[in-house]
Amino acid sequence: MRVAIIGAGNVGASLGKGWARAGHAITFGVIDPADPRLAAPTAAAGGAELAPVAEAKANADAIVLAVPWDAVPAAIAALGDLSGRLVIDATNPLRMGASGLELALGFSTSGGEEVARLAPGASVLKAMNQVGFAVMSDTAGYPARPVIFVAGDDAARKPQVLALVADLGFEVVDAGPLDRARLLEPYAMLWIDQALSRGAPADNAFAFMRKQAVAGAIEYIRYALTVHDGAALTSAYVLAAPHLQAAPECLGYDLTQCDEDPTSFILRIQWVSAQAHMEGFRRGPHFPPFLAAIRDFIPEIAEMRHYAPTAIAWRR
Amino acid sequence: MRVAIIGAGNVGASLGKGWARAGHAITFGVIDPADPRLAAPTAAAGGAELAPVAEAKANADAIVLAVPWDAVPAAIAALGDLSGRLVIDATNPLRMGASGLELALGFSTSGGEEVARLAPGASVLKAMNQVGFAVMSDTAGYPARPVIFVAGDDAARKPQVLALVADLGFEVVDAGPLDRARLLEPYAMLWIDQALSRGAPADNAFAFMRKQAVAGAIEYIRYALTVHDGAALTSAYVLAAPHLQAAPECLGYDLTQCDEDPTSFILRIQWVSAQAHMEGFRRGPHFPPFLAAIRDFIPEIAEMRHYAPTAIAWRR
Repeated sequence: MRVAIIGAGNVGASLGKGWARAGHAITFGVIDPADPRLAAPTAAAGGAELAPVAEAKANADAIVLAVPWDAVPAAIAALGDLSGRLVIDATNPLRMGASGLELALGFSTSGGEEVARLAPGASVLKAMNQVGFAVMSDTAGYPARPVIFVAGDDAARKPQVLALVADLGFEVVDAGPLDRARLLEPYAMLWIDQALSRGAPADNAFAFMRKQAVAGAIEYIRYALTVHDGAALTSAYVLAAPHLQAAPECLGYDLTQCDEDPTSFILRIQWVSAQAHMEGFRRGPHFPPFLAAIRDFIPEIAEMRHYAPTAIAWRR
Repeated sequence: MRVAIIGAGNVGASLGKGWARAGHAITFGVIDPADPRLAAPTAAAGGAELAPVAEAKANADAIVLAVPWDAVPAAIAALGDLSGRLVIDATNPLRMGASGLELALGFSTSGGEEVARLAPGASVLKAMNQVGFAVMSDTAGYPARPVIFVAGDDAARKPQVLALVADLGFEVVDAGPLDRARLLEPYAMLWIDQALSRGAPADNAFAFMRKQAVAGAIEYIRYALTVHDGAALTSAYVLAAPHLQAAPECLGYDLTQCDEDPTSFILRIQWVSAQAHMEGFRRGPHFPPFLAAIRDFIPEIAEMRHYAPTAIAWRR
């Protein structure tokens, strides 16, 4: 998609970087395109274009508001007629209060609804306001996938926004109509309050998660390569892995290579149960293409057996 | 602690069950202690006591409000003088709106603050309002630890509440003063809205999580037991495991036993790096007691080597 991001501060720059990496074409709409401080965010966003706010929306499929709350009315005024356009409101209605930043409005309205009022005829969706910028372009490495909720009334175009959020690596949850921004902005404020007033790190992220299935069986496949090299094995598993991911019986896997003996590899596969592996996966539609990808390596398997978890298990 | 839970509905019953399991003594304060429907929650809470609301607080170290919002004023009136008492407000100020449950107040006040107003002199902390009851007594099995934020102005007694929440298995985060309930109640409403209006399962939980360290090295220790039996090995690791947990170089471990050959075990240890294992852990204070616990099994080790992660890794 062609995404016009209004504002190239921390939030705009992080969104541009993340979406450019996902293959989207970025235009930053800014007050002064000649500002030399814009060189870094445009480079990070894959050579994004720069344009005055009024021109940034020209060919955009989506227009993202990423400016401070005080600047929202002027930015919308500069954008001009937004009727029929898709607008993603990533702002938070913040003001400086006695003890730091606080929400300027809420409960019976929201920043998202205020943006919709200022941009009559536009499809306004609230999204990408709920975590700090450090998370926006770097969603990897969390124990659960970080979540972004999306609120908006345009059911027809909401899938485009859900997909854009997912492209950044977030789990994306439909929060319903735009007035649910009344819940999403306090949610953002909780993150902001933790980061600014209570010492939480900037890479803290929210998750909205379900109980995870516990592997009932661990399959260990040890390879002692005598014919192929390690690169050939990992290449084969690049092709085989999607068939494990597609199989509901498989909960996870990892392949590791021995430091002391690079011909030794251990593939660890987490299965729902040994029965689910042998009767579900082995007899199901995903096994034949999986087997085809790794068949040449079968003679080099030193062990392939099921192991049962014991009570000895822990993760920091 | 002696915990008086006012209300034995879904929330009160779940809290009672979880806290009783953690060793706390529960009294349910209810309108009619003779109601036969109270048999199940009192049994689940380890034989909790039942008392009329007015008497439930008698010896309680903490009084937990777990009644519907409409019943809060009457419950507080029935409790009588609460000055100097620790009150945990687990309620949400909900009312029935045109499209389902909604918050009855917020932004410039909160249910927590309203409770404090109704109970002058009490130490009121907002907690345990942010997830559904199904999560409250069953916090295991999530990819990240479910979170509960605690808001309250009594810094001296807040640690008691933080500890009570942690006893249920939650990650607990201090949200600051009681007026932060203005953020925690919309947070709860987001959960409620997802569960009641958008098909989210009742065991959905929020997390507030940091990036997780990625293991740079996997150590595989394979045992082929010829002298000891498997029960002896797992007993040894019950003693050894705390020393791995205490070592900052260790990120996790799991021990599994082979289905086809019960004398074969694989211990998988996730280390920050091979160097952190060999130079940090091996030369640090946690290695000697670790080694002492498993020394007898060293002759039965078939393999003990470091493996490096490849790009082939995934978890559902």
